[in-house]
Amino acid sequence: MILDATCQLSYQITEDVAVIFMLRPRTGVAQSILHEEFSIYPPVPILEFTDVYGNLCQRTTMPAGEFQISVRYHVDVADGIDVDPNAPLTPMEFLPTDVIQFLLPSRYCQSDMMTEMARSIVGNLPPNYSQVWEIHDWIRREITYVFESSNASTSAVDTLASRCGVCRDFAHLGIALCRAMSIPARMVVGFLHELQPMDLHAWFEAFIGGRWYTFDATQPNTKGNRIVIAYGRDAADVALATIFGEFQLNRMFVSVNPAGTGDGV
Amino acid sequence: MILDATCQLSYQITEDVAVIFMLRPRTGVAQSILHEEFSIYPPVPILEFTDVYGNLCQRTTMPAGEFQISVRYHVDVADGIDVDPNAPLTPMEFLPTDVIQFLLPSRYCQSDMMTEMARSIVGNLPPNYSQVWEIHDWIRREITYVFESSNASTSAVDTLASRCGVCRDFAHLGIALCRAMSIPARMVVGFLHELQPMDLHAWFEAFIGGRWYTFDATQPNTKGNRIVIAYGRDAADVALATIFGEFQLNRMFVSVNPAGTGDGV
Amino acid sequence: MILDATCQLSYQITEDVAVIFMLRPRTGVAQSILHEEFSIYPPVPILEFTDVYGNLCQRTTMPAGEFQISVRYHVDVADGIDVDPNAPLTPMEFLPTDVIQFLLPSRYCQSDMMTEMARSIVGNLPPNYSQVWEIHDWIRREITYVFESSNASTSAVDTLASRCGVCRDFAHLGIALCRAMSIPARMVVGFLHELQPMDLHAWFEAFIGGRWYTFDATQPNTKGNRIVIAYGRDAADVALATIFGEFQLNRMFVSVNPAGTGDGV
Amino acid sequence: MILDATCQLSYQITEDVAVIFMLRPRTGVAQSILHEEFSIYPPVPILEFTDVYGNLCQRTTMPAGEFQISVRYHVDVADGIDVDPNAPLTPMEFLPTDVIQFLLPSRYCQSDMMTEMARSIVGNLPPNYSQVWEIHDWIRREITYVFESSNASTSAVDTLASRCGVCRDFAHLGIALCRAMSIPARMVVGFLHELQPMDLHAWFEAFIGGRWYTFDATQPNTKGNRIVIAYGRDAADVALATIFGEFQLNRMFVSVNPAGTGDGV
Repeated sequence: MILDATCQLSYQITEDVAVIFMLRPRTGVAQSILHEEFSIYPPVPILEFTDVYGNLCQRTTMPAGEFQISVRYHVDVADGIDVDPNAPLTPMEFLPTDVIQFLLPSRYCQSDMMTEMARSIVGNLPPNYSQVWEIHDWIRREITYVFESSNASTSAVDTLASRCGVCRDFAHLGIALCRAMSIPARMVVGFLHELQPMDLHAWFEAFIGGRWYTFDATQPNTKGNRIVIAYGRDAADVALATIFGEFQLNRMFVSVNPAGTGDGV
Repeated sequence: MILDATCQLSYQITEDVAVIFMLRPRTGVAQSILHEEFSIYPPVPILEFTDVYGNLCQRTTMPAGEFQISVRYHVDVADGIDVDPNAPLTPMEFLPTDVIQFLLPSRYCQSDMMTEMARSIVGNLPPNYSQVWEIHDWIRREITYVFESSNASTSAVDTLASRCGVCRDFAHLGIALCRAMSIPARMVVGFLHELQPMDLHAWFEAFIGGRWYTFDATQPNTKGNRIVIAYGRDAADVALATIFGEFQLNRMFVSVNPAGTGDGV
Repeated sequence: MILDATCQLSYQITEDVAVIFMLRPRTGVAQSILHEEFSIYPPVPILEFTDVYGNLCQRTTMPAGEFQISVRYHVDVADGIDVDPNAPLTPMEFLPTDVIQFLLPSRYCQSDMMTEMARSIVGNLPPNYSQVWEIHDWIRREITYVFESSNASTSAVDTLASRCGVCRDFAHLGIALCRAMSIPARMVVGFLHELQPMDLHAWFEAFIGGRWYTFDATQPNTKGNRIVIAYGRDAADVALATIFGEFQLNRMFVSVNPAGTGDGV
Repeated sequence: MILDATCQLSYQITEDVAVIFMLRPRTGVAQSILHEEFSIYPPVPILEFTDVYGNLCQRTTMPAGEFQISVRYHVDVADGIDVDPNAPLTPMEFLPTDVIQFLLPSRYCQSDMMTEMARSIVGNLPPNYSQVWEIHDWIRREITYVFESSNASTSAVDTLASRCGVCRDFAHLGIALCRAMSIPARMVVGFLHELQPMDLHAWFEAFIGGRWYTFDATQPNTKGNRIVIAYGRDAADVALATIFGEFQLNRMFVSVNPAGTGDGV
């Protein structure tokens, strides 16, 4: 399906601040960017760079006052996600070099503390896709989605204790448990068509059988029609807007619709 | 000025062929991408990657038959180009590491063979911007622009002999002469507003005083309003479409207009 | 001073395991590698790669049984470290792109939770080197070095609570407090001449005035004669040996001496 | 076999000059660096960086006068080279992204001009290893090794015309002919045990069946016991010492012996 996605952000700042945006999706295995708009007001010169995960980032300094940033994309995405219950875990010695970093513990995914927990969840499942599926299923069963139940410092260890969270917490816990089993896992932020209520979203991917598979424990059925904006080790790496100073978010608008349905600008 | 640029390419192939496109401009020091469209027909899955120069590239395989690719951008660019006659050449020991490669001779820029030539052109000019300006001026005076006077194998050495060429030859010669003076220089391909006749264009940049400056020996006055699509050592690195097999180019259309003037799609 | 450093590690494993070593120092601003030895027994084919921080890493699979790895270097290092009390903090907009990642919170450095703490330590100091010096000094005053007081999951938040730790904990806390003030900071592992007792060591660097400065809160006077082996966001990134399976460390030997004093092999 | 290789270079310069050395071999698929020495006299601070091909390079500025640089390695290498007459050429769509650049024409390998030549050599051979073997064999039969028959500007086109050359010319021609057949090929510089007379050496590798294979048309039998120092598109990329100014090479010494045979220092 071709999706038409929009994100508009409006901020108030009281002095000039440096900002970094991570809002340009890239064409990849599962998505093709057909159309992309980026506008910032007031207009400022922008410097683009690629971070260590391949995300396209943009740096600039915004003058004091109000500023808006808005993006809109038409992206061709798959309606479903790939599932392969028999895909084998990739032995460490065959992991591509740039995948290895996704085995390391990170700010919100303290995998080093969860080896026993992960083993108890996975049990005697064979060393394949089904282990990650079981981790994902366990999170669905055991963790309750509670709006605004977590904050910017909530980690997977916290979520294990509180047993509740939002999409990023579900993703962090899934990532931490995978890494604890030596399965590479990474954070994904983006858009999901028909997410209720519509918002930016987060989920995770695990590296199995030589490729990345999508998992999303917040959804009863892991649907396709996802637009990936950025990848990272965890939420620390994939803030879509980083503002280096005091600010107030005045307004945020997100929409995702089939292209051509007239709901866009 | 905000430019609205379009490029449409239509090819005929008789068997499935691998292709690489280099058609996504990046936001940078001198340009901001506000709006970008990319469409390919028939639709195929595409894999995006970044080459060693930072260009966004796309790989895919096109099925036998006809295919079209079209891109359109709105890009905010400067109306003029920066000129600083007193900017000093950057001593080798202060060159950023990733600039060093632009000192090396390359396929079409045999700088290793032009040291004497470059010295005779530059003469006693001080070690600053004026040396590159003189190289650019010399090319304007000595080389004649002749449509279709060169081909895909024409190099700077060939152009020195024939004394004629097109935009890519002018750029190659400028690059080769700069490198012969140990001044880093790189190829740029993109769009130039009001180019006569309208087409894709090529020019070069030289690294002086800690930054890159634009030079274009095909134009009487080096104007701004340029959209950069890709950088490279020379034309070998920056083919906007590389087709690994037999093909016929059926049609190519390029337009560049001020945004909002209604000339686009 | 030219240092002669040796590190020998001996492990026991009960089945074949994948391993990654990060034991090859690189020549850099403050050190020149004059001589380097690397040996592994039993001999196995090794694949070398560079991680996202530029560290030289080596991958292989070790067969079940005992294995030894030993390295030895002669490295020319400075006797002192650079100190500049007036070096200004680099404004965010002038940070080099590859330094930005060292502002992010990471596994052991939860800078996002320490903004108030950092501000209270730094007080009204001017925005320069003295802020980091005060952070370093505060750690020296407030945190007690206690051998074996922490483990592989101890983070900066834990250390703030327990008020004790070892070198890596001191470094993590320094890094977290710097990042909380928007000062880039990174973990360093390596050797320190005359460390008592001799062992591998960890400290941190902060990016001030356009460059990295060395800080080591475990030492009464931050001495030079340091050999850097690897850089990272925190200890998660710079394990000198990562063994993907069960193992026992049989023996570890570290020595650092002035070259030519006969204490080496 | 474990080889003990030494290279000593002595230069005379009349003013301070910037230099780049590419003299640190890396552990890889076919070699393990066990021991490495690097010394430069007079001693100067050195900055190390990795170029776009992964080679470890070193930058510094040498003061006017004489300077020496010497390196010595113990490297574990294979006694033979891998040969697989049935290894299939890798279709373009399966080439790893970082291999694609080795399809492009380059300074000394004008593959764009040799398509017909390459086809006539390869004839009706199946699309596998045998095509490259035939290219290599054709060069052995048709090009004569003549000491000092070429210089720093000699390209593959020149060698095709003159029918003679040295090791770098043989490599350039092999690379150009491979690329003309859309087979990725790269330049290798390093040491070859029992080369007669002993000197630095150059050969090439072609990417076939998902990996790189070694070819050396200067040798009657392509032997192993090779130490790779650097890879590149052609000789422009892999100068072991680049001196940005006037200089005189006073002395060059190269030795390669089985380790432990007493011929070293």
